[in-house]
Amino acid sequence: MKLGLVGLGKIARDQHLPAIARTDGIDLVAVASRNAKGDGVANYTDLAAMLAGSPELNAIVLCQPPQARFEAAVTALSAGKHVFLEKPPGATVSEVEALIALARTQGVSLFASWHSRYAAAVAAARDWIAQTTIRSIAISWKEDVRHWHPGQPWIWEAGGFGVFDPGINALSILTEIVPDRVSLLDATLEVPSNCQAPIGATLMMRTGSGAAIDTVFDWRQTGPQSWDITVETEAGTLRLAEGGNRWFLGDAEQPAGAEEEYPAMYRRFVDIAARNEIDVDLAPLQLVADAFLCGRHVATEAFHD
Amino acid sequence: MKLGLVGLGKIARDQHLPAIARTDGIDLVAVASRNAKGDGVANYTDLAAMLAGSPELNAIVLCQPPQARFEAAVTALSAGKHVFLEKPPGATVSEVEALIALARTQGVSLFASWHSRYAAAVAAARDWIAQTTIRSIAISWKEDVRHWHPGQPWIWEAGGFGVFDPGINALSILTEIVPDRVSLLDATLEVPSNCQAPIGATLMMRTGSGAAIDTVFDWRQTGPQSWDITVETEAGTLRLAEGGNRWFLGDAEQPAGAEEEYPAMYRRFVDIAARNEIDVDLAPLQLVADAFLCGRHVATEAFHD
Repeated sequence: MKLGLVGLGKIARDQHLPAIARTDGIDLVAVASRNAKGDGVANYTDLAAMLAGSPELNAIVLCQPPQARFEAAVTALSAGKHVFLEKPPGATVSEVEALIALARTQGVSLFASWHSRYAAAVAAARDWIAQTTIRSIAISWKEDVRHWHPGQPWIWEAGGFGVFDPGINALSILTEIVPDRVSLLDATLEVPSNCQAPIGATLMMRTGSGAAIDTVFDWRQTGPQSWDITVETEAGTLRLAEGGNRWFLGDAEQPAGAEEEYPAMYRRFVDIAARNEIDVDLAPLQLVADAFLCGRHVATEAFHD
Repeated sequence: MKLGLVGLGKIARDQHLPAIARTDGIDLVAVASRNAKGDGVANYTDLAAMLAGSPELNAIVLCQPPQARFEAAVTALSAGKHVFLEKPPGATVSEVEALIALARTQGVSLFASWHSRYAAAVAAARDWIAQTTIRSIAISWKEDVRHWHPGQPWIWEAGGFGVFDPGINALSILTEIVPDRVSLLDATLEVPSNCQAPIGATLMMRTGSGAAIDTVFDWRQTGPQSWDITVETEAGTLRLAEGGNRWFLGDAEQPAGAEEEYPAMYRRFVDIAARNEIDVDLAPLQLVADAFLCGRHVATEAFHD
């Protein structure tokens, strides 16, 4: 597979480039970025120039902010390329539904990457939960935005998701490990007075069978960071920690796989592209849209990076 | 069908009671309302009391504000009753998805009523559009909230939809007359400084084939009211006026059916209940959720009823 990458920012350099280099069957041929250049590849300033200048490309990965992803995805799919979408797969649910329809018409693959679903302990936790009954779930996703997202103004703009940018990772794990459909019932969004997107949120959700899911997202956590999901079941307490990379039954840590979210996703992309398949689960994005739809806005102090 | 009605407010008195009285095969047996009583029926203060006191009921219509509808719908479906949901069918998309799953498990009917789809000219306009190609669409939905929604504080609360309460009627017509899937790409929401829900909104949408849909919702229209959808096509201009009740090709008005949205919906409900079918299209609610997800909030002057 000959791959072109759009949006050479932090996530592309930290995760995509090393993972692509480790994946059999895929070569990075070109990069499109307004401000940056890749090493040893053809460089372009935008996707249209890349498609024109590197016609041998048959797949495109889109790593730019979600607000700009739709037009690029339409362009790439219309040109007959397989498309890998960084998360979130779009700025709205209905625009991703349009991409699914377009990929189907074009007979190419579309992959909505939820990297946290590929964290080392998620599959094992999901399989353990499937053998019991969930009583309740608590999610605590608290991190320091200044440490993890320095100089990323787009996250604070409308459509930039704010604290739901990390929070959607928790929702992607939640919707992977809960065997039935999760519904969002209520939300509170804390929005800094100088921003469009929330810095904190509490969500009230439930599983399809009625178990409560209490959730706190906070981007103001300067002490210990937490990316934890605790599942109370009839067979005891399961805890996923460190963003899905470790898991515990009671206090006993359980064996997990290797930490290799992005390499696992690129293997998956190569695999589905060979069969022109679509792998897009909209459930995590739907829960975020629902939180914005029904959520009460609470103004909080201005945020300065 | 023996029907119980929950929420005896303005919409129930203006529309549901007269329509039920005109519909063959359905009898209103009981009403549940915190503050009001129906004539010639068993009266209860809440749904649980109604289900206990009138076990002969086999169908429930939910007319209360959307924030309270989910719990009531779960209760009614769990009791094995067919359920008719006033619009919007819920406060979030994912909660309605849970209702669909529950109705399926219970083997009963669930009906999400989009009354504007039953307006007199909608079916004829849809059939005309299906024979041509859409170039662009403009929606203008402008009304005076003080006239149409006096004393309804819930519409201004989180989850109350604000100007999307009428606006979702336009979206329900739009998604009926456009043959492919509509995507929402961008939105601006004008929110009064003392409210949670918008008083005005502009939306940028597109059809699946890429035609632009420009939309304005405004609740501050004190002069002539407008509920118009104008569709530019390769075969000329079609205009739906008066909320879908009249239609024009160029300047020439076309013949439409009778104005009987709610009677038509109750006939539909009797029909699907006889076959335990589900009729829930989430597309209009999805577009509203997406508008809240990506929409830029603009604070505007405080609203006082």
